[in-house]
Amino acid sequence: MSENRSPDQAQDALQRMVQALRALPGVGPKSAQRMAFHLLQHDRNGAAVLGQSLLDAVNHIQHCSSCNTFSELNICTTCSDDRRDPSILCVVETPADQLMVEQTLTYKGLYFVLMGRLSPLDGLGPNEIHLDRLIERVEKSPIPVKEVVLATNFTSEGEATAHYIGEIMKVRDIKVSRIARGVPVGGELEYVDASTLARAMMDRRSVS
Amino acid sequence: MSENRSPDQAQDALQRMVQALRALPGVGPKSAQRMAFHLLQHDRNGAAVLGQSLLDAVNHIQHCSSCNTFSELNICTTCSDDRRDPSILCVVETPADQLMVEQTLTYKGLYFVLMGRLSPLDGLGPNEIHLDRLIERVEKSPIPVKEVVLATNFTSEGEATAHYIGEIMKVRDIKVSRIARGVPVGGELEYVDASTLARAMMDRRSVS
Ligand SMILES: [Zn+2]
Ligand SMILES: [Zn+2]
Repeated sequence: MSENRSPDQAQDALQRMVQALRALPGVGPKSAQRMAFHLLQHDRNGAAVLGQSLLDAVNHIQHCSSCNTFSELNICTTCSDDRRDPSILCVVETPADQLMVEQTLTYKGLYFVLMGRLSPLDGLGPNEIHLDRLIERVEKSPIPVKEVVLATNFTSEGEATAHYIGEIMKVRDIKVSRIARGVPVGGELEYVDASTLARAMMDRRSVS
Repeated sequence: MSENRSPDQAQDALQRMVQALRALPGVGPKSAQRMAFHLLQHDRNGAAVLGQSLLDAVNHIQHCSSCNTFSELNICTTCSDDRRDPSILCVVETPADQLMVEQTLTYKGLYFVLMGRLSPLDGLGPNEIHLDRLIERVEKSPIPVKEVVLATNFTSEGEATAHYIGEIMKVRDIKVSRIARGVPVGGELEYVDASTLARAMMDRRSVS
């Protein structure tokens, strides 16, 4: 408790906390207030841990310069794992999708995480999702990439993204495959159970 | 980016962030992950501001020793405002409810914020919600409290709380009033518009 603060400063910490919580996706003014009161009243330790972890994350997490996923290292632990097959590259939309593929235990190659998808209606074209990074990744690979597995979602945006990347790879004489449509049409990888996704991975087909 | 970290530490910042986000009410594993990725990808500044504001809040916000609401000061700015009438005390369940009453501009007395409500089914009795603090507030008031306005919610718990506090005050010869039932039955103050609540405040009736 800091008696030295002026009255104006006094209300600031709470107001700033409520305002800051609105940075979270899907959190409006009412739920921000509710969250702030809950933390202050019932879980101060949780609030302190969350505060510190956010600062740590922002200060230390960047993108892996090889696969583009979040990492504290320049090259993430997956990319630097020499038990993995560097000649095969699985392209996913998000780190969450990569985790889902990993959980199937059916894939031992490397990854490229788009951190997005093509969505022309939203103004997200090849430049906006930085497909140049993927092209550079493939062209400058120390060990040539022989196959690119397209594991984007089976939504219209995910399919368009897969098609576009497939064309890019085919002109570079790289084999292109798509995970099988064991994933329900219109479904998102993140919400599919691991066994369905495992089968889709095993049944991946060459995109000719 | 910190190359010196070991691989085990490398994944920690992200995992700890996702785990820490689950301290927020209503946030499960999937939405915690979604929030973390969103902040890292699209709003790092928001994440940093949120992190710092949580630490500031936890370090500086306590309870006002007079009205029990959240405050960085020992006595909050509302309690120390000498334009307010100290002979009338409005009892609310939460700081959010107090804000709602303030917004009606119809009340110029002081407050007591319960930070809860009686809920025997959940094991929340008079001791659990620290009604002794309210009793002490009234008994040791430098200027006698003449009227207690009960502005708890019109839920069954809020009504039970109002009844219980009313009895406590009546044996101390303090006038007890309840805000009028302009608030819909079963409704919560936080979700009522200011004009309805203003009318309920003006129409408050003596609890005899
Ligand atoms: Zn990587
Ligand atoms: Zn106060």
